[in-house]
Amino acid sequence: MALTSDEMNYLVYRYLLENGFTHAAFALGHESRVDGAKVAEGDEKIPPGALIAFTQKGLQYCEIEANLNDDGTDVDADFSILSAKD
Amino acid sequence: MALTSDEMNYLVYRYLLENGFTHAAFALGHESRVDGAKVAEGDEKIPPGALIAFTQKGLQYCEIEANLNDDGTDVDADFSILSAKD
Amino acid sequence: MALTSDEMNYLVYRYLLENGFTHAAFALGHESRVDGAKVAEGDEKIPPGALIAFTQKGLQYCEIEANLNDDGTDVDADFSILSAKD
Amino acid sequence: MALTSDEMNYLVYRYLLENGFTHAAFALGHESRVDGAKVAEGDEKIPPGALIAFTQKGLQYCEIEANLNDDGTDVDADFSILSAKD
Repeated sequence: MALTSDEMNYLVYRYLLENGFTHAAFALGHESRVDGAKVAEGDEKIPPGALIAFTQKGLQYCEIEANLNDDGTDVDADFSILSAKD
Repeated sequence: MALTSDEMNYLVYRYLLENGFTHAAFALGHESRVDGAKVAEGDEKIPPGALIAFTQKGLQYCEIEANLNDDGTDVDADFSILSAKD
Repeated sequence: MALTSDEMNYLVYRYLLENGFTHAAFALGHESRVDGAKVAEGDEKIPPGALIAFTQKGLQYCEIEANLNDDGTDVDADFSILSAKD
Repeated sequence: MALTSDEMNYLVYRYLLENGFTHAAFALGHESRVDGAKVAEGDEKIPPGALIAFTQKGLQYCEIEANLNDDGTDVDADFSILSAKD
């Protein structure tokens, strides 16, 4: 299952709105033409904080993968998004 | 490991830039005060498409969790971000 | 006496704010680096509607000039900013 | 002859575009719904720098009025938009 770019844009748009970045949300709304009707529908379905939740989960998953040795044992090391090296 | 809001904002900022949403990126840059110096550093470390990759992975992980029955067997059903019902 | 570009930008910035164009005002504030301190000072000195008032006066002046014949008599014709031909 | 708010918004929009304030122009374009078709038409008719020219002329006119004594003689004093005191 893959995210469409519309779905991705909408998740980002919701993130901007929910975090008070009103100018960025306004600009993205017009630049990406996030459809108003669809947005109204989606509002009910996507819980607040969705983008953060997915990103967080994806990051943990990456971390788990990065920390697994070939023999399946865990590696004791920190994982950072901004300086991912393990 | 948790994402800080600075890291999250920066991931979103990079997403906007990489996808040509220049007005939204400009606004977010000023609204979130994504630090210019840190951005310059981060540019080398964060690969393009990072936010999409993390979100996608997180979504797959959610899908796997949602599709697992209590007995650990997979459930045959579609999972959609915009109408998640399983 | 000539307007500096800072003064001009500030008049436009005030126009945007006063007319509820908050996103445009936000963007111009950052793009033109209208100085915050100066703005705070200027706020007291420049009356609301200044840009409209000056533009309106300038337009009337242009109209008068355009309608004057060489012999100084008035010309009976309309003058429009969007289709100025007389 | 009075400027309509559409004409005023369009003059400001042109000013923003001509002076490289692309983000502010983008935002104003959407906030004021400056009509695209009308803009295309107007482009040929309104000369570059129109807002500056009108404002400048209006300011000079104000200055002349402010500097005229009751007996019609000129007053020797500076006139400043940001600290108009005469």
